[in-house]
Amino acid sequence: MRKIDPDLHHRRRLQILEAAAICFIRRGFHQSSMQEICSQAKMSPGALYRYFESKSQIIEAIAEEDRSETKHFLDEIQQHDSFIEGFMQAVKSRITQSLKEDYARLAVEVLAEVTRNPKIAKRFIANDKQMKTSLVQMLKTAIKNGTVNPTIKPDAVAELLIATIEGIEGRAILNPNFKFRSVAPALEEMISQFLRPDRPA
Amino acid sequence: MRKIDPDLHHRRRLQILEAAAICFIRRGFHQSSMQEICSQAKMSPGALYRYFESKSQIIEAIAEEDRSETKHFLDEIQQHDSFIEGFMQAVKSRITQSLKEDYARLAVEVLAEVTRNPKIAKRFIANDKQMKTSLVQMLKTAIKNGTVNPTIKPDAVAELLIATIEGIEGRAILNPNFKFRSVAPALEEMISQFLRPDRPA
Repeated sequence: MRKIDPDLHHRRRLQILEAAAICFIRRGFHQSSMQEICSQAKMSPGALYRYFESKSQIIEAIAEEDRSETKHFLDEIQQHDSFIEGFMQAVKSRITQSLKEDYARLAVEVLAEVTRNPKIAKRFIANDKQMKTSLVQMLKTAIKNGTVNPTIKPDAVAELLIATIEGIEGRAILNPNFKFRSVAPALEEMISQFLRPDRPA
Repeated sequence: MRKIDPDLHHRRRLQILEAAAICFIRRGFHQSSMQEICSQAKMSPGALYRYFESKSQIIEAIAEEDRSETKHFLDEIQQHDSFIEGFMQAVKSRITQSLKEDYARLAVEVLAEVTRNPKIAKRFIANDKQMKTSLVQMLKTAIKNGTVNPTIKPDAVAELLIATIEGIEGRAILNPNFKFRSVAPALEEMISQFLRPDRPA
């Protein structure tokens, strides 16, 4: 039996996912063929089919990537004693990475597919729910610890924080000159003024 | 010569745009044919072609709608003496309307097209720039009038406010239970704590 090199397997998988992302951004999910993804990944169809049998499997792998990035984001927040500080650090890492990877353009393709394909929708909606549930829990804990203002409603605030991050990630599409570093200080000021435990009513 | 009834013309145009939006949401911009838009609008191809000769013309009309909604949004802010109050009112009208019209799903289709079609991109990017330039101007005036905190950077804040609104509009896609009224008070609190002239440093 042929031995599988797990590192090589992982690298090849990433290579295909990156190629697929480039194709989806360039021509859309439905217009991109497996053939084009092969050319972009510089792999033969036989080699590619060993990893993914269809575009659906590729988009499921993108959902899995999204799940693991969400987990990473949430873990990063928890590495800090203060929710506000942890959240800002995690947002900075995430948005810097998103902008570098042209994530917003891929996200638009993925979201278009989410609105049409219930199976795909289920995966991304589950990731989103995980994000929200965890943020609500962290906000509740932070309120107990006295590091977040006790008058805020955790559920509404979690939703608003997610909306704000997603909105910033999307800015790159309509503002070609968008630089995260130009809004990061204002974002930090807004979030910390809002959430800090000692703010006046 | 046949007389044109301007009211009827306007209604028919809207009827087509609404039908096109339904088709684009259902199957995507590229998968939707003029034929399908005709069926959805319950019009003959001959009748429809009198209004729009191509899908490109339809998406240009959607860009024009977007421009007029942006103008309406900006006008609504200026009907109030306080920027913060005006902004919140305008946001409430806009988001309520967006959610009612399933705007987020159409926006995803439009944004996907923006990433691929430079001619379409130009129109939406111009609308976005108009939004930003006007918000920066309003923030500068509000700082002069003493109704907005003078330490904020108008350019960064305008960008952040746009991101926040767009992020909220997009929430309906990944959170099927999203209700704007559940986040509106938190949004108002966050914006007003951040922008109010008398906040502590």
